[in-house]
Amino acid sequence: MEIDADRLRRDIERNAEHGEIEVDEGRGRTVLTGTDANRAAREMLVERMEDVGLDVTVDAVGNVAGTWVPESADPDAAPVAAGSHVDSVPEGGIFDGPLGVYAALEAVRAMQDAGVEPSRPLVVVSFTEEEGQRFADGLLGSSVAVGERSVEEALAIKDEEGISLEESLERIGFRGEGRLDAGDWEAWYELHVEQDTQLERESVPVGVVTTITGITHCEAEIVGEANHAGATAMDERTDALAAASEVVLDVEAAANDVVESESETAVGTVGSLSVSPNATNVVPGKVEMGVDIRDVEYQSMQTIVEATRSSLAIVEADRGVETSFSRPFDLEPTPMSESLRAAAHRAGEEAGIRTMDLHSGAAHDTMHVADVTEAALLFAPSADGISHNPREWTDWDDCASAARVLAGAMAESAGADVAGE
Amino acid sequence: MEIDADRLRRDIERNAEHGEIEVDEGRGRTVLTGTDANRAAREMLVERMEDVGLDVTVDAVGNVAGTWVPESADPDAAPVAAGSHVDSVPEGGIFDGPLGVYAALEAVRAMQDAGVEPSRPLVVVSFTEEEGQRFADGLLGSSVAVGERSVEEALAIKDEEGISLEESLERIGFRGEGRLDAGDWEAWYELHVEQDTQLERESVPVGVVTTITGITHCEAEIVGEANHAGATAMDERTDALAAASEVVLDVEAAANDVVESESETAVGTVGSLSVSPNATNVVPGKVEMGVDIRDVEYQSMQTIVEATRSSLAIVEADRGVETSFSRPFDLEPTPMSESLRAAAHRAGEEAGIRTMDLHSGAAHDTMHVADVTEAALLFAPSADGISHNPREWTDWDDCASAARVLAGAMAESAGADVAGE
Repeated sequence: MEIDADRLRRDIERNAEHGEIEVDEGRGRTVLTGTDANRAAREMLVERMEDVGLDVTVDAVGNVAGTWVPESADPDAAPVAAGSHVDSVPEGGIFDGPLGVYAALEAVRAMQDAGVEPSRPLVVVSFTEEEGQRFADGLLGSSVAVGERSVEEALAIKDEEGISLEESLERIGFRGEGRLDAGDWEAWYELHVEQDTQLERESVPVGVVTTITGITHCEAEIVGEANHAGATAMDERTDALAAASEVVLDVEAAANDVVESESETAVGTVGSLSVSPNATNVVPGKVEMGVDIRDVEYQSMQTIVEATRSSLAIVEADRGVETSFSRPFDLEPTPMSESLRAAAHRAGEEAGIRTMDLHSGAAHDTMHVADVTEAALLFAPSADGISHNPREWTDWDDCASAARVLAGAMAESAGADVAGE
Repeated sequence: MEIDADRLRRDIERNAEHGEIEVDEGRGRTVLTGTDANRAAREMLVERMEDVGLDVTVDAVGNVAGTWVPESADPDAAPVAAGSHVDSVPEGGIFDGPLGVYAALEAVRAMQDAGVEPSRPLVVVSFTEEEGQRFADGLLGSSVAVGERSVEEALAIKDEEGISLEESLERIGFRGEGRLDAGDWEAWYELHVEQDTQLERESVPVGVVTTITGITHCEAEIVGEANHAGATAMDERTDALAAASEVVLDVEAAANDVVESESETAVGTVGSLSVSPNATNVVPGKVEMGVDIRDVEYQSMQTIVEATRSSLAIVEADRGVETSFSRPFDLEPTPMSESLRAAAHRAGEEAGIRTMDLHSGAAHDTMHVADVTEAALLFAPSADGISHNPREWTDWDDCASAARVLAGAMAESAGADVAGE
């Protein structure tokens, strides 16, 4: 079964015209949920789905699903779904999201063209507000589709200007009815750009994610004493920034230790740090820090969290600062379905396309879907790992290879006999 | 020769009513140059000066000088001047500045009352915009009085709203004529609150400053690579904040080393640090730091500056960040006049008031005046070292003791025979 690489490319390039921005290098777009650009991207998708006979539904939170019920299929069988999202971050790239949506559509078209005979329906999905740039924090549409968040709760979320998701979807004609229920699906596949360099370094066109890492965010506050930088002797100061600097280095060292000894995928980052009063001539009185810790092993994450807490205890004891610690966000790692991963590797083998296992350090809608059904996440290479940026780039050949693997895996899961073609 | 402690206190308390703010604890005021509160404080000072026969002049930049020419004095002899400033930081205390101005006035009144016979005129001075909260960076009036900055340049300085110093002084009726010239003075004394705890710890009411520390401000920029905190492995990141944390600790360690080995008064502070993009889930790509280095020995300051530079070189080599370094501000230490310091200690002895040598880590108008004539800086204790804050406090008994020492020293420098009274 072949896919049409040119058709896929045309779709992605045409989609890139919605919300296109002027850039010096690369190609960028800004497609926030509920904007005119988002309406245009959605309308194009619906049109493309209907062109090939999919039955399109839009649910109450704007999730778009196009269903193909082949003649060979039992219309009541649980379908195999695949997709991603069409929204973007402000000034984002053209692959993050659309590649997964249009590759899923291309997979369905390829099956239609090849005359394969799936025993299950297939559904192409575009989730609402994956990026969380206008409403809530991300993965919004999938959170509703798995029942983690109610339709009502989601629709009531407001943007910074007080406009609700419901109003914004009504405005663009995509406030539909009902709730897309991912629990109804037999299986779910998402193809996404990697946003990292594992595939590029190995020159492999398709990655099969083993686990989406867990994520913990910790917040720490270190309180010393703000004082005149000139009039306060070295042995009289309680410098919150010097204490915080020890903690930054301890978090880094703890993550490196875990990589060395426990789990090479672990990361620990002090990404944000704010100093008060932050004047050159004042000894810092207070520092607030945000720490991001992720790994495929929850235990490794715990090790780094504990190291952070003990570093705070050490600066309290050694430097006389006061510290506080909280952990406002904690998601355990999400392992992907072993059977779907195997299907993806087989699809690669059959098509003569190299695949490799890797993990995802970034969050995706698939994290939610995996809570209610078998789920898999495939990656295509990102040049230099750049994403959320107009310089985001995936070679068209790699897009095609990844779409081909996706199509093969979807077909297998849908009970089509493609191996023997 | 006695001073009138109650009269001094009444002046400081009356002055504190100008720009007074509501506070829960202590007593605060906001007196920015050119505001109504500043006009009121200036008018009160002129009235108090004229009440005791001083000849008041206001120069082009608003410096106020009240001259007493005793019958005993040669009117053409170089005068002895003393004073400080009446402006404040926003929500500042009531002693920082006014103590020095009104103690100088009290010293003149005490000489008048005691019938001492100075052979030189005496001048009570209030400099414009010492705090630098509205126009320029501080010590503005004294910079003009010593010729470091021209009258025209000073008058043209604008506040954040585009209002010039000249306009603001005209508005309050304090844009005078000519230029107060500190080079005409035989000697200069400033009494100020210490803003540190050296006097408090020793329970000594009056400090005699040996040297005002030099000040260097360094700015460093550390550039790494901003990257996804989840998708960037520990060994692939160039974390600008981790590098900066090493530098913060190296600056602190270098200052501690210098205190240990070279000069116990040295201080080194990373007071400001800003992270980009400063998001918990992004590896920091850039850090900007401001470093404040001071000591009474310029060589010690150099040692800490060099340590800062070499720390930047080390993180460049070890971590692959790029760094830049500049030193936009560099003032060498200002030693105070030995003869005036001796006069201050003698005045303390004669009055039975303990005095002690100490250094000043904070900058004062006296730094400028010392460039053109003999200059001395006296300190009164600050409770807990707190200043620039409504909780700034100096006991009234200490105010009186310090004013008494100031009066004795001024009288000696003015050629009055007070020792033999």
